[in-house]
Amino acid sequence: MIKEITSLTNQTIKDIRALHMRKTREETQQFLAEGLKIIIDALDQGFSPQILVYGKDADRHPLLTRAIDQTLKARGQVLEVTREILEKISRKDNPQMVIAVFAQQIKTLSDINPKDNDVWVALEQVRDPGNLGTIIRTADAAGIGGVILIGDCVDPFSVETVRATMGSIFALPIVKCTQAEFIADRARWTGSIVGTLLTATHDHRSAPYQRPTLILMGTEQSGLSPEVAAICDTHVKIPMRGRADSLNLSVATGIMIYAATEV
Amino acid sequence: MIKEITSLTNQTIKDIRALHMRKTREETQQFLAEGLKIIIDALDQGFSPQILVYGKDADRHPLLTRAIDQTLKARGQVLEVTREILEKISRKDNPQMVIAVFAQQIKTLSDINPKDNDVWVALEQVRDPGNLGTIIRTADAAGIGGVILIGDCVDPFSVETVRATMGSIFALPIVKCTQAEFIADRARWTGSIVGTLLTATHDHRSAPYQRPTLILMGTEQSGLSPEVAAICDTHVKIPMRGRADSLNLSVATGIMIYAATEV
Repeated sequence: MIKEITSLTNQTIKDIRALHMRKTREETQQFLAEGLKIIIDALDQGFSPQILVYGKDADRHPLLTRAIDQTLKARGQVLEVTREILEKISRKDNPQMVIAVFAQQIKTLSDINPKDNDVWVALEQVRDPGNLGTIIRTADAAGIGGVILIGDCVDPFSVETVRATMGSIFALPIVKCTQAEFIADRARWTGSIVGTLLTATHDHRSAPYQRPTLILMGTEQSGLSPEVAAICDTHVKIPMRGRADSLNLSVATGIMIYAATEV
Repeated sequence: MIKEITSLTNQTIKDIRALHMRKTREETQQFLAEGLKIIIDALDQGFSPQILVYGKDADRHPLLTRAIDQTLKARGQVLEVTREILEKISRKDNPQMVIAVFAQQIKTLSDINPKDNDVWVALEQVRDPGNLGTIIRTADAAGIGGVILIGDCVDPFSVETVRATMGSIFALPIVKCTQAEFIADRARWTGSIVGTLLTATHDHRSAPYQRPTLILMGTEQSGLSPEVAAICDTHVKIPMRGRADSLNLSVATGIMIYAATEV
């Protein structure tokens, strides 16, 4: 049954708005996804919203009808709200007309099992939400195994990261671990662990990308930590031939993922 | 001589603030760069600020002293201002303590002369300021000839684009042209013109990257226009092996630039 809500002080609306805070997302293990396209992407990949919110004056697009039907069938809540409420939920003047709350899917290292022909990517302390979202999108486009987040990374379920994934947040496993857990788990990677370091002398294309391959990327500011760099089989560097001595992290990761998957 | 300004209604401060508007940037042919690092990058590449603005309570870093000296020497204005004025200029609560106004350097097609071993990149109707800035940074890191903007692109001199270039806005030629000018100038490219198209059947690595090479990238939403696609020697596609059917434009351009420069 669809419920109509017109009051900003409604408790469910307050709970949804609180998902802009990382603390609330971690406590509830929920997150927000905005826009019909990403919600349909989620449905296509077998994920139903726990709560689907749409504007009273939303276009009754057949895809919206489908999202409503599938949400109700999976026993989620469907809320029809005013434009004002959508603006408050999305924190934007021109909000998307459909917003959904999903359950976070996050894995630990012990959940994953890299296959013989897999490539995975691990990011240490990635800080920028847009970079992380773009990297998840690239990982999905390249069809790699998944993305591992080491240490104190930005939240993969922030609104900005989810938006930058363009729906790929639902497409592949996201693993979280501490630096110590990651190092202790090194034996899981029976192929090559290839870390990018500005001080490396090898070109990124000359690495032995033995499968299962793990590509290791450091933080935007200072690269890989010495502890994580120490467990790599090979260190490589994307050649810098101009004035700038570094690439944006999502661009560098894209170049590395394609270098590893194309051998 | 350094001038102290404390009033938000000072005309020079108003003029600087107006540089957030594209219209003003185009009329004055000026732009804003924020932060000491990018200003030092500019000085290192031979560009002096027309106006240098710094906070009264800014750290008297030797690099700031150098920026002040070089600006005065090149007959630019140096303004010492309050934190409140910096916040107004930068439109941020935690503004950079140094902000500068530079003259735009923009070229036309007739200004450029691709060399025998050059790679250039041309973007048609790029819409996202962050993408454009990141692409300029990548082009600089890879040491390619320059970046050509075809048609109705986002302004390369917006604050957001300049920030994403990380100083590379000063490092290589940026060319602006209309679609008609670009097509009429086709003969300038005596090597390969390689366009990316989602419908291409060739892998991006299988293209003949004859120098001087021009890489052509389309808009975020819909790719290259049919008119520009028609003048390419080859159409290529970065393989999509997962669920997502496209990459972020700055990631795709990075992969293409490195594919072209590494042959």
